[in-house]
Amino acid sequence: MNNGEPTAVGVERHKTLRLRPVAIDTYRENVAYMHRECAIYRAEGFQALSKIEINADRRHVLAVLNVVDDVTIVGTDELGLSEQAFEQLGLDAGSMVSVSQAEPPRSMECVRRKISGERLELDDFHAIARDITESRYSKMEMAAFLVAASETGLDREEVLNLTRAMVESGERLDWDEPLVADKHCIGGIPGNRTSMLVVPIVAAHGMLIPKTSSRAITSPAGTSDTMEVLARVDLSPRRLHDIVRKQRGCLAWGGTARLAPVDDMLISVERPLGIDSSSQLVASILAKKIAAGSTHLMIDMPVGPTAKVRHMREALALRKLFEFVGDRLGLHVQVIITDGRQPVGNGIGPVLEARDVMQVLENHPDAPADLRQKALRLAGRVLEFDPDVRGGDGFNIARDILDSGRALAKMKNIIEAQGAQAERYQLGGLSFEMNAPRSGVVTGIDNYRMARIARLAGAPLDKGAGVELLRKLGDEVEAGDVLYRVHAEFQADFDFARALAGRNNGYTIGSADQIPKVFVEF
Amino acid sequence: MNNGEPTAVGVERHKTLRLRPVAIDTYRENVAYMHRECAIYRAEGFQALSKIEINADRRHVLAVLNVVDDVTIVGTDELGLSEQAFEQLGLDAGSMVSVSQAEPPRSMECVRRKISGERLELDDFHAIARDITESRYSKMEMAAFLVAASETGLDREEVLNLTRAMVESGERLDWDEPLVADKHCIGGIPGNRTSMLVVPIVAAHGMLIPKTSSRAITSPAGTSDTMEVLARVDLSPRRLHDIVRKQRGCLAWGGTARLAPVDDMLISVERPLGIDSSSQLVASILAKKIAAGSTHLMIDMPVGPTAKVRHMREALALRKLFEFVGDRLGLHVQVIITDGRQPVGNGIGPVLEARDVMQVLENHPDAPADLRQKALRLAGRVLEFDPDVRGGDGFNIARDILDSGRALAKMKNIIEAQGAQAERYQLGGLSFEMNAPRSGVVTGIDNYRMARIARLAGAPLDKGAGVELLRKLGDEVEAGDVLYRVHAEFQADFDFARALAGRNNGYTIGSADQIPKVFVEF
Repeated sequence: MNNGEPTAVGVERHKTLRLRPVAIDTYRENVAYMHRECAIYRAEGFQALSKIEINADRRHVLAVLNVVDDVTIVGTDELGLSEQAFEQLGLDAGSMVSVSQAEPPRSMECVRRKISGERLELDDFHAIARDITESRYSKMEMAAFLVAASETGLDREEVLNLTRAMVESGERLDWDEPLVADKHCIGGIPGNRTSMLVVPIVAAHGMLIPKTSSRAITSPAGTSDTMEVLARVDLSPRRLHDIVRKQRGCLAWGGTARLAPVDDMLISVERPLGIDSSSQLVASILAKKIAAGSTHLMIDMPVGPTAKVRHMREALALRKLFEFVGDRLGLHVQVIITDGRQPVGNGIGPVLEARDVMQVLENHPDAPADLRQKALRLAGRVLEFDPDVRGGDGFNIARDILDSGRALAKMKNIIEAQGAQAERYQLGGLSFEMNAPRSGVVTGIDNYRMARIARLAGAPLDKGAGVELLRKLGDEVEAGDVLYRVHAEFQADFDFARALAGRNNGYTIGSADQIPKVFVEF
Repeated sequence: MNNGEPTAVGVERHKTLRLRPVAIDTYRENVAYMHRECAIYRAEGFQALSKIEINADRRHVLAVLNVVDDVTIVGTDELGLSEQAFEQLGLDAGSMVSVSQAEPPRSMECVRRKISGERLELDDFHAIARDITESRYSKMEMAAFLVAASETGLDREEVLNLTRAMVESGERLDWDEPLVADKHCIGGIPGNRTSMLVVPIVAAHGMLIPKTSSRAITSPAGTSDTMEVLARVDLSPRRLHDIVRKQRGCLAWGGTARLAPVDDMLISVERPLGIDSSSQLVASILAKKIAAGSTHLMIDMPVGPTAKVRHMREALALRKLFEFVGDRLGLHVQVIITDGRQPVGNGIGPVLEARDVMQVLENHPDAPADLRQKALRLAGRVLEFDPDVRGGDGFNIARDILDSGRALAKMKNIIEAQGAQAERYQLGGLSFEMNAPRSGVVTGIDNYRMARIARLAGAPLDKGAGVELLRKLGDEVEAGDVLYRVHAEFQADFDFARALAGRNNGYTIGSADQIPKVFVEF
């Protein structure tokens, strides 16, 4: 057969292009730009939206192809890469790169088996996690996996294997201590900033609690966004490690560590699709915590009519799944079902939430009582992970630490260690108030709606934007009383938030017996 | 509450940008380009990859946002649109447009219900089809729908409703005749160009057969690509209609008509994902045919070890699903299970397949017997849709039409009517041969592998590229005999095809008893 003739060199030359950065930001989707008259484009029969592989110097990157008809963007002998793709490849502009059709990821075969109803094994999940980590999956392919693996699609053994594969897709920290505590809330409740209280209390007790968190994606503020009002949160892994060793705790952004990277990539698809399966939730949370080296994890699971989990039955099933996977992977998980009927604290948005937190730490008379109580109870349960703390004593220890000012002192040390924020963030200068349309008792505050108003007002990007709650569940109001005040920094945001609040202000006013009951542990 | 103050004008002005075409081809995915310093981008809190809606002059278009850091691509007061998106909006460059965050499509709620295992109703499928037609779905969202609706996900009532919704998503032709015939092959067999024989035979008999087909997407040649070697295939709906009325048949590209547009959009996601559920296959084929005004449809369903359908059991289940949906939508469907063990005819690729077809029509001594036999049998069954043709007589009528030269004459008329191709396409100038590695009998020819070799050689884009088969199933060969010859137009393609064929030539040589049996109707 006609193999091995010396034409390979010709092919190689034919396939080489000069690299050029294109100043277009395509976020998590790598895009390559090739001119329509480019010889390779013509010869390879690529199509716009084909996935191609760009190789040079033992580096490679995958990208979706866009075809360009303007030589000022890319010339016929150039290959353009969008900002993130260019950075990922890490070569200088003008480097010679070769280009070929990317093979579809091999593990899509596992996804197709899952779609047709088969069970997947650990090896299958490993293959999928590897291909996703290497950016071999398009958004479309990730969506196919997520839907195939959602709700009705994964049994608990599979959730376990998916979690394991996610952990092993990235780096893993080892703190070399017998007890590494962490806490996590499954989300959905605005203003629920207990981590910024639990961490200083627990660290002041001496227990290791290296808390990292994400920035808000769909909510008006994450722990990182709020902590950033007070201190730097984007710390190198090395610096983070030093701070935790010295302070016994931290409140940093987890984005710089490369823990369970598959999880971040799946979340970037899951969020816009609005699919939020319990399999994915459990695998995502536990993989991140195990990779971060935690040994004990307390999970705050709010239940309420506008929370993520709306019924006790659902909460209990989810708790069992957390326990099953956690136990098998050597992570002690304690799930606490909490009151998720309304936002926690008085503020929604980074500056307002930071104020709530600091008031609690300072034992200020205006400090929101609900945030204080919830944080003390969660901190108490974390403290009881310590074998020397008697069951039931945690709460009192936590309260002593808070009341004595030791928690505040610890917080100040952590802020100092992470780097106190130079800028003093202020509340947004534009504000409007929403009033009670009639007299009665506040019987409902819609978590989702309040979060959306705060986001439209500019949170979390504009740190001073947000919602100040002046009335909470069970409060009596007269018609015309102020229910809440919205702050914004920009006129357009102000207008959008006001229009949304005007359509539905998120509050329901009725009689005391209409307040929904919720059966929680505290 | 603070509604109705006169700030709306300010917001509107703030939200207006000058439209600018950006010479980037993003195929079926609309992309909008906005400069990072653009006031709207800043104020609205858009992110790269957000979906935005562009409005002006009662027109609107949805697009995915890319953020630009180079004013030569778009300025801070401009909104750029990729080529297709610009065309879709249909406004002049420089027009003022407003921009807002696109709401996620409402019908995603139906998709989420499907994901959690619920049955969908006709209204749900209508809502989904409407949103997809209006480009409200991203590729990711379409993937979510396709996976949720695949194999295990849709019962036959749901397939029926999906088909109905697809038909109603676009225009529908009415030929105003009692019998409008069509044929369709479910695909997967290279060289299977029976339509180009069935249409002239059936039209010569006087039966109406307005055959439109697609271009190849994953195969080395579709009917349109092959017919284009002989005649123009991109005809306006009006012209097509005139030709069919006069000739009783046509062989045109269906892309210009707006029949079941949802189907085309779903296929653009289904293909790269490689998910090919029977629900989707049935809905896709039947929706297109019903929209095209067919009353009788003959489906060619090849079965074989490397065909799309690999087992009889599977073929029979698929046939039942076609019959169920077709009957309920008033389309008479006849599914014929055929031999799909190897490519049909002697050539793979547009020029080679056109040569096979013309040789059969010309009763040429070199004409491939298998293509002739298969076409006559399929044409015979189509002719039997005519109530005046006795069951069993169709084959003989078809043979008379072919042998007498009437089919050839009809084909010439159709070519003339569509517009004879001015260019005379030649076989690619570069070629190599693959030889039998040992003596024996050809016991297998891998459909998939042969298609891939032909595609790498340049088919269907380079019409003269392809594979000439010199040996078929059951042929005896001596070691060194030529099995097939590959033609290419470009050196790079030649090299790629040769490398692939060198790794696995697609043929298996063994003994006569190893030829797989297949139980087909002929």
